[in-house]
Amino acid sequence: MEYSFSKSLDALKSSAVREILKLTQGSSVISFSGGLPAEEFFPVAEMKEAFNRVFSQEKKALQYGLTDGYIPLREWIIGRMKQKNMHVGLDNMILTTGSQQVLDLLSRVYLDPGDCVLMENPSYLAAIQLFQSRGVRMIGVEADADGMDLDDLQAKIAAYRPKMVYVVPTFSNPTGKAWSLERRLGLLRICRENNVLILEDDPYGELRFDDSSAAYPTIFSLDEHPNGSAVVYTSTFSKIVAPAVRTGWAMGDVNIIQAMVRAKQAVDLHSSSLDQMGLHELLTHFDLDSHIAKIRKEYRERKEMMHHLLTQQGWEEITWNAPKGGMFFWVELPEDVDAEQLLPYAVKEGVAFVPGAPFYVDTPKRNTLRINFTHADRETMMLGVERFARAVNAYCGQAVR
Amino acid sequence: MEYSFSKSLDALKSSAVREILKLTQGSSVISFSGGLPAEEFFPVAEMKEAFNRVFSQEKKALQYGLTDGYIPLREWIIGRMKQKNMHVGLDNMILTTGSQQVLDLLSRVYLDPGDCVLMENPSYLAAIQLFQSRGVRMIGVEADADGMDLDDLQAKIAAYRPKMVYVVPTFSNPTGKAWSLERRLGLLRICRENNVLILEDDPYGELRFDDSSAAYPTIFSLDEHPNGSAVVYTSTFSKIVAPAVRTGWAMGDVNIIQAMVRAKQAVDLHSSSLDQMGLHELLTHFDLDSHIAKIRKEYRERKEMMHHLLTQQGWEEITWNAPKGGMFFWVELPEDVDAEQLLPYAVKEGVAFVPGAPFYVDTPKRNTLRINFTHADRETMMLGVERFARAVNAYCGQAVR
Repeated sequence: MEYSFSKSLDALKSSAVREILKLTQGSSVISFSGGLPAEEFFPVAEMKEAFNRVFSQEKKALQYGLTDGYIPLREWIIGRMKQKNMHVGLDNMILTTGSQQVLDLLSRVYLDPGDCVLMENPSYLAAIQLFQSRGVRMIGVEADADGMDLDDLQAKIAAYRPKMVYVVPTFSNPTGKAWSLERRLGLLRICRENNVLILEDDPYGELRFDDSSAAYPTIFSLDEHPNGSAVVYTSTFSKIVAPAVRTGWAMGDVNIIQAMVRAKQAVDLHSSSLDQMGLHELLTHFDLDSHIAKIRKEYRERKEMMHHLLTQQGWEEITWNAPKGGMFFWVELPEDVDAEQLLPYAVKEGVAFVPGAPFYVDTPKRNTLRINFTHADRETMMLGVERFARAVNAYCGQAVR
Repeated sequence: MEYSFSKSLDALKSSAVREILKLTQGSSVISFSGGLPAEEFFPVAEMKEAFNRVFSQEKKALQYGLTDGYIPLREWIIGRMKQKNMHVGLDNMILTTGSQQVLDLLSRVYLDPGDCVLMENPSYLAAIQLFQSRGVRMIGVEADADGMDLDDLQAKIAAYRPKMVYVVPTFSNPTGKAWSLERRLGLLRICRENNVLILEDDPYGELRFDDSSAAYPTIFSLDEHPNGSAVVYTSTFSKIVAPAVRTGWAMGDVNIIQAMVRAKQAVDLHSSSLDQMGLHELLTHFDLDSHIAKIRKEYRERKEMMHHLLTQQGWEEITWNAPKGGMFFWVELPEDVDAEQLLPYAVKEGVAFVPGAPFYVDTPKRNTLRINFTHADRETMMLGVERFARAVNAYCGQAVR
């Protein structure tokens, strides 16, 4: 039998990096590579009780559900979003298999192969993969610590006529940056003027390390909404409850969301309604805000410890950001060092990270890498940084002072 | 804000039929429309215990999981498939959000827009929608009660050079037919000779009404496998356990399955691993075969009752199949009657069905409709058929004798 795969499959070739990281699974290698929350904080006992309550309901709860998701959970999310100045109705919201699926569904209903999307550069790796698989052309926009450069955004819109801008404005993946209010407003104004849709991906917004909850308003909240909005907003329970329930959501104009509902019907009918019911039972019996406060405190401490451990190495030519939230350090090695070449050394020493190159939509800065600081506990983190330092010193030798 | 949707969205326009059926949700309308299992038989108490065991495991169980799915559940399925003469390894299997997602993932990695797929005609509605959304050209193959006409299959392969044939050979949706062994072997031979991939969709295979388990071997089991197989096989737990867990699987050549894994990573990272763990705990403590035997017996009785109730009406010009398994009657009205026109009459009387036209990939037989017999209990079924008969007599009047 001779197979003949689709052309779009070429965009999905497995990377050498993914192959290396696969080798670390289940091994004694300490992984700083994934965007993993700390398992110690999963509210397992509360989830157990929540699912018990679900199974005590009518049996028809386990029947096929609505494509747009379990209504009581949507209502709960609507209430929470209201506190963040985002006001939507049931028809403006769809529940998905993690927020990752929002990228796929929106791409299906809004982008044709050959269409252009503007992105931060570097940007979220799995968004790049998804857009690639759809045959979408990605163009990177210049940026600094406050977000996209608005002049460059304007120029790229004029040059490429994009249909969409994809951003992670609050504690971005991979760079950990948070956009200033001015840049948020500027992006919104420019996109509205040019009818460019904004996909605001916000998995990390709750994981901020200071108490200024008003400092990072969502772009969605700054726009006219829900209908007629220039923004589709997406977030997830993966980082604040647990990834295994794979439940995310999108909010936006009714026509966009309902188009996504039709696409989802063809794609998988609906996501796990059992998980959606379990989450709803959890959230109505659980102080989510206290839980998030606890995670925030712990993640801030882990961030500070990672910063401390890296600083201790005394490297003068290795720099990293100081994120105000989220899960990642973005590290720059000396310019002549290739992080993909460093990775096998690190794995040999027993630690893994993600090289930065695959996060770029065009010419990569090959001397970058991403380190997660939320998953490893203190002891593991110390050991991991030790191993990382050995790898850096072995690979880079005298290049790193 | 002016939106500009993708071209492929046009293929996903909501149908008038779907809108009518949506109106029946949560109302007192008796629905014979969905492919719904009987809720009374969901093993809820056993599922409750199973999920309790999951929540008693290590917390890291709730972390991100593997894209191809929870290994112990894959191993369990591999064991069960072996009993059906299908022998695969872990790398030949991917777990998905229902078997519906298999259609999407396989389309992504195997079909480009403009490629041709051959299908039974009529065929599964949501497969048609999915292929449409992918821009795939669908060609119907002539068929009789034993399956596709092999001469027509041969001719259509020569004429259209399809990349794939999509079939539901065992208790098909919507017609309920089961292919003969000769047709299964013929399809396989012809497809191998022409390098045409077969997607064998088997959600209903376990729901047979007689005891001849060997009567309907899967096409996958008849082929050389797993690697080099001309068949990708998919099934689901939705019909034999409960739909809410949204867990299906696909098996096939390692290159095809691993391509689907890469596609799935971009699409949604992975399906609910909580549900996969819960299912695994259920299945290792549960007599699934006794459970299926109980459902089979009940569904056979409901099928016979539906047949009896329809027969009682004394319609001479309305005919239907006598399925040997599955969930559906396929009904033919007099030739001049349009089932889509009949539907509003039925809804007004308080009963719903699915008109047959949307199941056709080309010119529809508009006088057909699909009736589900597994969901309604006896009392509801009696009332539903009464209402259906009133609608038929009101709409068709003297046309139906």
